[in-house]
Amino acid sequence: MAERILGAIEDRVVGVLGGGQYGRLLSEAGSRLAIPIVALDPSPASPAKQISAISLLHPNLAHVEGAYTNAKDIQALAERVDVITVEIEHVDVQALFQIRDLYRKVGGNLGKGIEIFPSPETIAIVQDKLSQKAFLHKLNVPVAKFIDLPDPTPESVGEAAKILGLPFLLKARRNAYDGRGNFLVKDLSDVPQGLKALQGPLYAEQYAKGVVNEIVAVVVRNVKGEIQSYGIAENVKHGKIGHLVRAPARLQSKVITLSAESLAEKAISNLGEGAVGVFGVEFFVLADGSLRAHEIASRPHSSAHHTVEASETSQYENHLRAILSLPLGSTELKVSSATTLNLRSTPDSVEDVRAAVSRALETKGATVHLYGKKDAPGKFDSPKGRKIGHVTVVGPSDADVNDRICQILGSLGDDALVPRPPKPHPRPLVSVLMGSDSDLPNVRDATRILDQFKVPFETLIVSAHRTPKLMNRFCEEAASRGVRVIIAGAGGAAHLPGMVASESNLPVVGIPVKGPTLDGVDSLHSIVQMPRGVPVATVGIGNSTNAALLAIRILSLSDPKYSVAIEEYRANMERVVLEKGEKLKEAGWTWKLDGNP
Amino acid sequence: MAERILGAIEDRVVGVLGGGQYGRLLSEAGSRLAIPIVALDPSPASPAKQISAISLLHPNLAHVEGAYTNAKDIQALAERVDVITVEIEHVDVQALFQIRDLYRKVGGNLGKGIEIFPSPETIAIVQDKLSQKAFLHKLNVPVAKFIDLPDPTPESVGEAAKILGLPFLLKARRNAYDGRGNFLVKDLSDVPQGLKALQGPLYAEQYAKGVVNEIVAVVVRNVKGEIQSYGIAENVKHGKIGHLVRAPARLQSKVITLSAESLAEKAISNLGEGAVGVFGVEFFVLADGSLRAHEIASRPHSSAHHTVEASETSQYENHLRAILSLPLGSTELKVSSATTLNLRSTPDSVEDVRAAVSRALETKGATVHLYGKKDAPGKFDSPKGRKIGHVTVVGPSDADVNDRICQILGSLGDDALVPRPPKPHPRPLVSVLMGSDSDLPNVRDATRILDQFKVPFETLIVSAHRTPKLMNRFCEEAASRGVRVIIAGAGGAAHLPGMVASESNLPVVGIPVKGPTLDGVDSLHSIVQMPRGVPVATVGIGNSTNAALLAIRILSLSDPKYSVAIEEYRANMERVVLEKGEKLKEAGWTWKLDGNP
Repeated sequence: MAERILGAIEDRVVGVLGGGQYGRLLSEAGSRLAIPIVALDPSPASPAKQISAISLLHPNLAHVEGAYTNAKDIQALAERVDVITVEIEHVDVQALFQIRDLYRKVGGNLGKGIEIFPSPETIAIVQDKLSQKAFLHKLNVPVAKFIDLPDPTPESVGEAAKILGLPFLLKARRNAYDGRGNFLVKDLSDVPQGLKALQGPLYAEQYAKGVVNEIVAVVVRNVKGEIQSYGIAENVKHGKIGHLVRAPARLQSKVITLSAESLAEKAISNLGEGAVGVFGVEFFVLADGSLRAHEIASRPHSSAHHTVEASETSQYENHLRAILSLPLGSTELKVSSATTLNLRSTPDSVEDVRAAVSRALETKGATVHLYGKKDAPGKFDSPKGRKIGHVTVVGPSDADVNDRICQILGSLGDDALVPRPPKPHPRPLVSVLMGSDSDLPNVRDATRILDQFKVPFETLIVSAHRTPKLMNRFCEEAASRGVRVIIAGAGGAAHLPGMVASESNLPVVGIPVKGPTLDGVDSLHSIVQMPRGVPVATVGIGNSTNAALLAIRILSLSDPKYSVAIEEYRANMERVVLEKGEKLKEAGWTWKLDGNP
Repeated sequence: MAERILGAIEDRVVGVLGGGQYGRLLSEAGSRLAIPIVALDPSPASPAKQISAISLLHPNLAHVEGAYTNAKDIQALAERVDVITVEIEHVDVQALFQIRDLYRKVGGNLGKGIEIFPSPETIAIVQDKLSQKAFLHKLNVPVAKFIDLPDPTPESVGEAAKILGLPFLLKARRNAYDGRGNFLVKDLSDVPQGLKALQGPLYAEQYAKGVVNEIVAVVVRNVKGEIQSYGIAENVKHGKIGHLVRAPARLQSKVITLSAESLAEKAISNLGEGAVGVFGVEFFVLADGSLRAHEIASRPHSSAHHTVEASETSQYENHLRAILSLPLGSTELKVSSATTLNLRSTPDSVEDVRAAVSRALETKGATVHLYGKKDAPGKFDSPKGRKIGHVTVVGPSDADVNDRICQILGSLGDDALVPRPPKPHPRPLVSVLMGSDSDLPNVRDATRILDQFKVPFETLIVSAHRTPKLMNRFCEEAASRGVRVIIAGAGGAAHLPGMVASESNLPVVGIPVKGPTLDGVDSLHSIVQMPRGVPVATVGIGNSTNAALLAIRILSLSDPKYSVAIEEYRANMERVVLEKGEKLKEAGWTWKLDGNP
């Protein structure tokens, strides 16, 4: 062991099977905590090795050139380190079992033994897609129907097809990742081609129809079995230069995200006591809101790259904390919204990617990560291209982050990404509710102000008395859809604002609307005199301008641009009134009488 | 030049004079953007070199072992790189002038020439404290009185003392940093000792009396002269293991922070066209709110370490962007509050520091940075100890960040850091205003709810009619003190909520208080019927419970813990009402009549 680093909380050296982008991001997290990291990778200058000059700090240590599928190379790594982990599942797991046994017996590595996290047992389950599926199924985590194909022939596959229906998937059990190892059978005549395309043992899986969202739950678990969740991110497929990951996911119901989190925690907790480190569990969300667990990854996940900029502790640091038995760090988001653009480079997209990176440097809230991969011809081995970096954009709202992503994508963006006011904004911060379309004039000023301040908003017709179920659903979903303030106008009995406040945790602004009798005092009292426990922020009768301005003041607490805008608005009001005063002085007291305009 | 990195936006190699913690943090930022960095440092394994395995990526490149005060060593660095920058001002600036001239003539470094940012001219001004002071004075940036001592003898110093008064400071013009190079003269008999203690040319400076805050403005400037400010941070001296930096600074008036920002921008813009990169300008704030510029640093500053976790672009990345003519990144904070604990290790504090680091790992929102400095005996050359790392804590409010810092400091914390409710919280999120102490009962429920939800709040007596000036000052300062929501109770004419809303941008919640006549309808109408443009969120007459709950709903938008608490509160209300229903069923309709409790 080298001389001690001042303040260091960890002397042990971590060895990583794989020295690619995940290893690089683990290294970055490690260097902050002065945790030394040695990478095993065939390339002498792989992404992870570039940023860990391990031999400077520990003269006896060096990175290892070799493959994580080669037992001898893994052994060479083991000899240098105290704790082994992986940046990918598809390692030679038998070598890990042997190393653990060997070091257990001889006390290896300077007599200290060696730890391997996740354990070989856990990796063994995860690296075999069929055993993953069987494991999940046994746990009652919903998965697509699957059938083992111990002897894959057109005949046995045909039998499976009878059960699974068409189309279905032929899948390789091992080394299947990043789009490899899947074959979609649309017609039984495709089968021979599929059998030829795939390698190693196979299984068949039902094709999930009607997938509306692809979501990922990322969790971290330590040796004590404590588990923490990063919440749910959504994978959005996106064209030529890569795909987007949005966090937090905005789904149709909070129930879906809560179930996905709890299913993920259940799955990882049951993967064995060696299930230590970061894990990702991918799910499909179907149209009816039900979930299908799709895949487990036993390592940091590309759907949680955003945790570096957006979370209190990144998944990379937490992976290291978990495998070293340091306290787990908080997994909470520290910003309101984040999206990661995962960049993939193909020979066709090299220049588009570079242009997007350049635009990202000019985009507010964007952080660029490049993995240091060299432009080696012939290296584009995956049909989807090489993962060469990512850009994470954070911001005070989904709408801002969306705009910033559009700026980075430029002409590579598609329609789905572009907001289209004056239609309801797809990612509103404010919901303006009215009981019927006849109330539109009563909230018109509010919508004008929201538009003027460029607040993303939606207008909805929801009636407490005529559509109570719609109102309930709206209240249940509003917060998880990203809505932060609800404005509700109501006249007469005027129950809408109070009922919405009763069924939601969001601040509700109520506008009393003046009806044909009682001058609106009926609505005012009905809205403002809520019982203790359920507040409605009431504004003046018919004063929907103030309802919007109040909503914006509220939003300004988490987004300084609105604070600046309110300041300007107030200054402008002052100027207008002062000008009128000047005009009154000039025109004299007859101003605005006949002939004195 | 090596093969191109995929996605790279920069091929040039950056050389840094100095390979300590700033070089390390620059390297970290560089690796994210795949910008290669070579460090010049006497130690072969200095902090920066540990995380930049430059020779792997560029086989012809290696870090340089040498001193930034040695012309030959600087020349050796220059030969390897395209752009030179510094992590400290106290470099051999003559060597930099010579290198620039040389490369200008011969087109050096593979014929591409070399750029040096900040320019030698700028560094020359900054590294000489006297020329810094003269420069600032000439620009009308307020500084303490200073007198050159070209021939420092007890006699000439005595003459200076007549002008400056006692006590005053004897200061070394060069190589003065981190507490070195200053000598406080309390009595003229100290002078000979001072002259002996200090090296090189000296000057004398008035001692700033009545300093209430030490603040730092950090800005970044590019070659085009564009300048962006990170806002103001406050340096808080703190005992045994280091000092704290709070961002944003909460000073008695917004005017102070705005002036400091604009003075800093003025100073750096006038430091010459080569003033490119990150700069820090330190100020003292005196009791009357006036500023004294204290010191300029022409490099990333320890008062902006928090920008790594708390800002949209860190000062380190922006320094690289500036010197490489890439677009400057946004300097906005992405979290509400951040504090950095700068760790210093002395032989006496090694274990305390390590214990604080361990506690930091268990603290929400904390990120630990260790610089990889080895525990070399005799290396504690500065009286203040070695800077060995820092911990940045972020959070949704100053109060949360303060609590988290207290947790990290443990018994090393002092009274000033510990909040002491039920007295006004020193860092409140909610201000509860009342016109007189007789209104206390009318806001009591609000304070109880705020306390129950653990919201940091203050209660203040402010009257629109009797203390209008106090009200104005309160409104002006509230937001910059960190207040987010104002609750104001008022009866009768009830002007307070509306007037406060008129003079502040914050959301204001108004509680109509019932007076001896009119049942509170007078107050209700006065509070709710605000003119268009100035909203007050009005709750029911006397319903201060709802005022607090509304404030908490508003806070919950930027702090999820309040959202969870509101959810629990609502569930609890539901349970209580359902239980009462059960009880009514059981007890029958005579419940609560005599004898049926």
